[in-house]
Amino acid sequence: MELNIPGDEELKNLDIHSLGEAKIKSPLNLDDALFVNDDDKILVHSDSKKNKQYFDCRETPPAFQPAGPRKKIFFNPEEITCGIVTCGGICPGLNDVIRTIVLTLQWQYGVKKVLGFRYGYEGISSGARKEPLELNPSVVKEIQHKGGTILGSSRGHQNLEDMVKTLIKYKIKILFTIGGDGTFNGAHNICKEIKRQGELISVIGIPKTIDNDIYCSETTFGFATAVEEARNSIAAANEEAKAAFNGIGLVKLMGRDSGFIATGASLANSDVNFCLVPEVPFALDGDKGFLRRLEKRLERKQHAVIVVAEGAGQYLMGQSKETVKDSSGNVRHKDIGFFLKQSIKEYFKKKNIPITVKYIDPSYTIRSCPANAFDSVLCLFFGQNAVHAGMAGKTDMFISSWSQRFTHVPLTMAINKRKKINPENTFWQTILAITE
Amino acid sequence: MELNIPGDEELKNLDIHSLGEAKIKSPLNLDDALFVNDDDKILVHSDSKKNKQYFDCRETPPAFQPAGPRKKIFFNPEEITCGIVTCGGICPGLNDVIRTIVLTLQWQYGVKKVLGFRYGYEGISSGARKEPLELNPSVVKEIQHKGGTILGSSRGHQNLEDMVKTLIKYKIKILFTIGGDGTFNGAHNICKEIKRQGELISVIGIPKTIDNDIYCSETTFGFATAVEEARNSIAAANEEAKAAFNGIGLVKLMGRDSGFIATGASLANSDVNFCLVPEVPFALDGDKGFLRRLEKRLERKQHAVIVVAEGAGQYLMGQSKETVKDSSGNVRHKDIGFFLKQSIKEYFKKKNIPITVKYIDPSYTIRSCPANAFDSVLCLFFGQNAVHAGMAGKTDMFISSWSQRFTHVPLTMAINKRKKINPENTFWQTILAITE
Amino acid sequence: MELNIPGDEELKNLDIHSLGEAKIKSPLNLDDALFVNDDDKILVHSDSKKNKQYFDCRETPPAFQPAGPRKKIFFNPEEITCGIVTCGGICPGLNDVIRTIVLTLQWQYGVKKVLGFRYGYEGISSGARKEPLELNPSVVKEIQHKGGTILGSSRGHQNLEDMVKTLIKYKIKILFTIGGDGTFNGAHNICKEIKRQGELISVIGIPKTIDNDIYCSETTFGFATAVEEARNSIAAANEEAKAAFNGIGLVKLMGRDSGFIATGASLANSDVNFCLVPEVPFALDGDKGFLRRLEKRLERKQHAVIVVAEGAGQYLMGQSKETVKDSSGNVRHKDIGFFLKQSIKEYFKKKNIPITVKYIDPSYTIRSCPANAFDSVLCLFFGQNAVHAGMAGKTDMFISSWSQRFTHVPLTMAINKRKKINPENTFWQTILAITE
Amino acid sequence: MELNIPGDEELKNLDIHSLGEAKIKSPLNLDDALFVNDDDKILVHSDSKKNKQYFDCRETPPAFQPAGPRKKIFFNPEEITCGIVTCGGICPGLNDVIRTIVLTLQWQYGVKKVLGFRYGYEGISSGARKEPLELNPSVVKEIQHKGGTILGSSRGHQNLEDMVKTLIKYKIKILFTIGGDGTFNGAHNICKEIKRQGELISVIGIPKTIDNDIYCSETTFGFATAVEEARNSIAAANEEAKAAFNGIGLVKLMGRDSGFIATGASLANSDVNFCLVPEVPFALDGDKGFLRRLEKRLERKQHAVIVVAEGAGQYLMGQSKETVKDSSGNVRHKDIGFFLKQSIKEYFKKKNIPITVKYIDPSYTIRSCPANAFDSVLCLFFGQNAVHAGMAGKTDMFISSWSQRFTHVPLTMAINKRKKINPENTFWQTILAITE
Repeated sequence: MELNIPGDEELKNLDIHSLGEAKIKSPLNLDDALFVNDDDKILVHSDSKKNKQYFDCRETPPAFQPAGPRKKIFFNPEEITCGIVTCGGICPGLNDVIRTIVLTLQWQYGVKKVLGFRYGYEGISSGARKEPLELNPSVVKEIQHKGGTILGSSRGHQNLEDMVKTLIKYKIKILFTIGGDGTFNGAHNICKEIKRQGELISVIGIPKTIDNDIYCSETTFGFATAVEEARNSIAAANEEAKAAFNGIGLVKLMGRDSGFIATGASLANSDVNFCLVPEVPFALDGDKGFLRRLEKRLERKQHAVIVVAEGAGQYLMGQSKETVKDSSGNVRHKDIGFFLKQSIKEYFKKKNIPITVKYIDPSYTIRSCPANAFDSVLCLFFGQNAVHAGMAGKTDMFISSWSQRFTHVPLTMAINKRKKINPENTFWQTILAITE
Repeated sequence: MELNIPGDEELKNLDIHSLGEAKIKSPLNLDDALFVNDDDKILVHSDSKKNKQYFDCRETPPAFQPAGPRKKIFFNPEEITCGIVTCGGICPGLNDVIRTIVLTLQWQYGVKKVLGFRYGYEGISSGARKEPLELNPSVVKEIQHKGGTILGSSRGHQNLEDMVKTLIKYKIKILFTIGGDGTFNGAHNICKEIKRQGELISVIGIPKTIDNDIYCSETTFGFATAVEEARNSIAAANEEAKAAFNGIGLVKLMGRDSGFIATGASLANSDVNFCLVPEVPFALDGDKGFLRRLEKRLERKQHAVIVVAEGAGQYLMGQSKETVKDSSGNVRHKDIGFFLKQSIKEYFKKKNIPITVKYIDPSYTIRSCPANAFDSVLCLFFGQNAVHAGMAGKTDMFISSWSQRFTHVPLTMAINKRKKINPENTFWQTILAITE
Repeated sequence: MELNIPGDEELKNLDIHSLGEAKIKSPLNLDDALFVNDDDKILVHSDSKKNKQYFDCRETPPAFQPAGPRKKIFFNPEEITCGIVTCGGICPGLNDVIRTIVLTLQWQYGVKKVLGFRYGYEGISSGARKEPLELNPSVVKEIQHKGGTILGSSRGHQNLEDMVKTLIKYKIKILFTIGGDGTFNGAHNICKEIKRQGELISVIGIPKTIDNDIYCSETTFGFATAVEEARNSIAAANEEAKAAFNGIGLVKLMGRDSGFIATGASLANSDVNFCLVPEVPFALDGDKGFLRRLEKRLERKQHAVIVVAEGAGQYLMGQSKETVKDSSGNVRHKDIGFFLKQSIKEYFKKKNIPITVKYIDPSYTIRSCPANAFDSVLCLFFGQNAVHAGMAGKTDMFISSWSQRFTHVPLTMAINKRKKINPENTFWQTILAITE
Repeated sequence: MELNIPGDEELKNLDIHSLGEAKIKSPLNLDDALFVNDDDKILVHSDSKKNKQYFDCRETPPAFQPAGPRKKIFFNPEEITCGIVTCGGICPGLNDVIRTIVLTLQWQYGVKKVLGFRYGYEGISSGARKEPLELNPSVVKEIQHKGGTILGSSRGHQNLEDMVKTLIKYKIKILFTIGGDGTFNGAHNICKEIKRQGELISVIGIPKTIDNDIYCSETTFGFATAVEEARNSIAAANEEAKAAFNGIGLVKLMGRDSGFIATGASLANSDVNFCLVPEVPFALDGDKGFLRRLEKRLERKQHAVIVVAEGAGQYLMGQSKETVKDSSGNVRHKDIGFFLKQSIKEYFKKKNIPITVKYIDPSYTIRSCPANAFDSVLCLFFGQNAVHAGMAGKTDMFISSWSQRFTHVPLTMAINKRKKINPENTFWQTILAITE
């Protein structure tokens, strides 16, 4: 689906860091044509005019380094140990990614030892609560059919020096970090610390965010599954709404800063009448306010379905002196779902209009299920390409999907930024066209 | 599943009211052997000894009147109008029942007019917000594949005189009321008022309760579907719990007075460590208290899954001077899920043990989905037998399932009582055996 | 669902064999009232009159021995090894049963060693292809979420002397055989051979048949799941049928001798117009024949859905000199689905009526999925009760569900007989009422 | 997923036909920036080098006309009637597309009359069996939750002159044809006939093919749903295979000329050991032949899962003098599934190796279900963009998805060609990496 593309300024440096020259012949038994070269660049813009402008000025249009197997690799597979860590909230497909990394490393490259650090970055520290889990084909057998992560996860950062020492202790040469923008921030800092300590360790990110809000990436795994699951809650809200006179079904979905899940699920269901997301401010009161619009909808149809992303309308809920953050540094949101429910009840009570509100918060159920087929395939490609990148000695980067291809993107491109719905594009216009 | 059987005293009067002698030949084209007689009684007790005691004393052991088609019926199908009303919360299978009643009346008996009253008992009143919906095969086509009720529903009672007048106005001769014990109470009072007004109108109940707590009934429709759906939330809680060190997944399920859904879902999942229901009191504190037991579980396994029925542990949450009731007269419960979540957090914070609690409340999603196969079949039998009963002139009764059969039970048997889990029987013992 | 009850003659001997007096105190920590006595009999008939006839003649009406924990057991749990074997086709819930038996033996009774024989009876022979698998809580962890059987299965019998020698070799004192009537036949013969060799080994059957055709049992596990799955194929057939002018959706479902799956799925779907089962013969030709009835249906509605059980209408497909049997001794059926498809095409071609037939054979997909919630609970009770029976020294019997209870039934009651749909009862009448 | 891109020669003419100058102001209430211009071209190639080559030669690299709303439209919405027709086999999402076209035409553009032709092209002929269905918001309400097509479908072509006369008779100005390459061929011929008759009727195609094999399109609707559904059959095959010693699960999936479903489902499942598609020839015999490889797999693991696309290995099944085609002109394939099953059985019988083969053919079940969330969203965008294109007076074209955008493509680009798996690209290499 159409996505927001970073601005020209931001796209100036898409170069990928490398640990050094890759001199070892890849053990992959592929035809020459199937290996990928760093300069087989993939255009950021699919727009013809946009690219022409660059070419007309004899400049190179912004483009990503392609992902894929390299003819020459940096590490000797037989000598290295690799590590995997999963951070932040769980997401459908985590186990698919873990499994693919392990099988690709061991079956395709011949790496002998892969360690799974336990419970997020905490597991790569001297204070780890559990020893790393040794991963092999038998341990990862059929784990892809389960939700969650067999490694466990956690939020929060650790002492960088301690982490790099832990990596050295376990002889890790490639670390695969599966997480979101907070995790990537940590991964980038680990890269800096590795350099400071003069080590040659590759750190490869695999973007994981149920919200689909990683910058410079088209689709992240788990998102399609979450949208599919969210549909059930909307269907429930719809039946509850229709079953009562002036019935209102209200569903709160994940989406702290970006409303992709709320929007995707609303587009997929077509029974939603109001879709509220963080990117598009709205007022409660006034003639064009949400409550009046809801009233008009009830007058017309006697029932309504509302989907609200958790990060929507935060400004409606009053100021508090201090912003509360969780251990990953994410701002803790006030509960817009509960707030809306109360506001709706009060509004109609004042107007003496009988209504029934049914509030549904599927919360963790949309992120803890196994990946659907679409996401499983995505995870497979993410995992394989992450291994190719790491073996080739790339570092400080993550794997991204773009224009039906997979690319390398510097970690810094996705830190402190989030992909958001652009209310000016077709995606959001479609929501406007099918709701209310 | 094994169920609690009413006491001897209660079972003294299982006689079914009748509007008068059934003299009309049934239009059903069945072999004689397939018609049912009132005295083909079905034993309440399956226990051999229990029945022997009665026979030894030359008494008749308690038994239900069987449901099924009668050779002679009371109403002339061609002359009557029938009505259907759905009351209370929605439940998987409502549309299956509506559809079956309509098709059985029209195709099998030749009844020409069936009206669906809108939004519960309110629709059978002079203040009805919408006119009754005329029901026929084309209106009910494929409605069984949808959740909710096409008629709408509501809670609360109406003026009895007004309701009976409304029935008379629409020439209703059989009223099918689909609802729970509150609805049955209303239906019973309607019967009394019908009698007072000297009318011959049959009122037949079909037991609907997501909680499966209708007295004198083995299984009510929608329950199996709700348990199936509840599984998803438990699976989510399990994955969330395992993904964190000392992760706790907490799921609140429906069950105001009876913990059948919580227990059924826990039995079906086997990943549940604590199942808390209204029928079995528990303490939070103390060495045998819930919190200490939870702590021990975490020490052993570093994760735990808790299922709590909404009506469990109400006494833990302090006294309030007045009991709040909803418009059906059900006591509004305090939120045990939220309370437990807070109590758990405080307990472990005091003990300085790091934990993560993920709270899941699937709420309406488990009751608003379409019926699963098991429930669809159940609804079919309930609907058909309700029609047979009404056509035969039975009244003031509901259809119940018992020992693989369907029976007639007086409405009074299910009013102000609820089927509950008996902690002394195998059903609950099994929960104890597989949890913690 | 209403089921066919065995005749009086058959019910004369429901006595359960016992290896000897149970003298050991049960390690189960239960209140006295929760233990079950052999003479807490459960009536076969729920019909009041039927039982009264017996009591009037001072006879005992037929009744089953109840399942459940006994206060005194026969085997010393700490000293014995138990075995489990799964035979015949796979069925949803097999892993649930295996898991429950293992956990109940080890956690509740304290049995130390449980062996899982591989690939059916073949695994209990000197020619076994794989050694038995040692089962414990860690091996059976979460296996209930998978279809199939972790032990593997096979059809066919083995040399009895060799099997008993194998049991002795592994010191098996209780053998749990999970299978259908062929398996029970084998189990009964093993019992006879055990006796002949003078051993004290208990053999307990758990009824497994996707077809739900075990005699003297109300519901077997896996059946509800299979019906649920079969619904998808019927829904597909319905959409295909409606999408074409004179579209015909034809679904073949399992059911060699009994049409329970076909009937259950048809009742649950209500979109089926013809349901053909082995128990109810039908003609293809003639004015009341199936093809003419199909033609009339198409004239009325321009589409039709047909469900046929694999064992239906075998007599239509001509005689062959020899009956072919599979290695379990089951008669191999000719393909009624393919035959019907061809017959339909020919009939309408001759009549020059354009039709489109879409044939769907879900085959193994309905039996290889994990158990649904209903079946998982059933498996839990079957497994626990099987262990209680074995520990108490019962033998040559199987666990059955009856009238909301679980019972002990002699293996001989289910050999060479099959539960079938009785076309004279309500169950089948309902199909007639809702189809065509 | 990475797809095969048409060759340079083929891409020379991507110009879109137009009925004339669009002069009418669009009734859509959008910001100027949200309207799309014909020259906002979308590059065919995402590869940087490839495009540079064109720019270096001062040529325009191949690019598609973008889909989307135009500021000026050709037809006056208030005056026109539009038609919709669905052709060929059913596909998840057909009803979503129908519904979106109707709602977009009526709610967004103000078109008053929309007709749905019945049962494919046959419905646009003087011999139509049923009158066109008048479509409006109430008719299309909630149809998106159903599989199939409410209009019905059929294969085969009709007399062109007759079809155009029928369009004129019903005053159709825009005809939306939803179908695959055969349907597009018909649509293109209709365009030529319209021109010959001097009419101004727009014909817009929406690509529908369960096989995902429409040329010049990235993803067609229904494909993701079919892959999801196909997973169930593979899971079943896997459980059946593991349950037997030397168990083989064999699944035949749709894919006449392209193996996308087989490949997609194999990638998504990771339990598949052999994936056989039409694009990659294979031998049965010989040391590198399929049968010997299967034998080796069984030696290693004692079970195997095979997925075969229906069009694979046709050359293995011997020559027949004449090629049989269906009424759409598609070659009827011989049954590779059945053939493989027999070949496997014979091979191992000869070698005296005991095996068990379970053959699963989910057939129509994977295409007759409702669209999953991903496909529903896709259908929404396809339907809206088709309406925008038709209103703007474009014709003889279809809507395609490309690089996260939607484009216009001449119908001729997709006739007599099919998108196929390129065994030389990563997509297929990944299958090789994860199987056997």
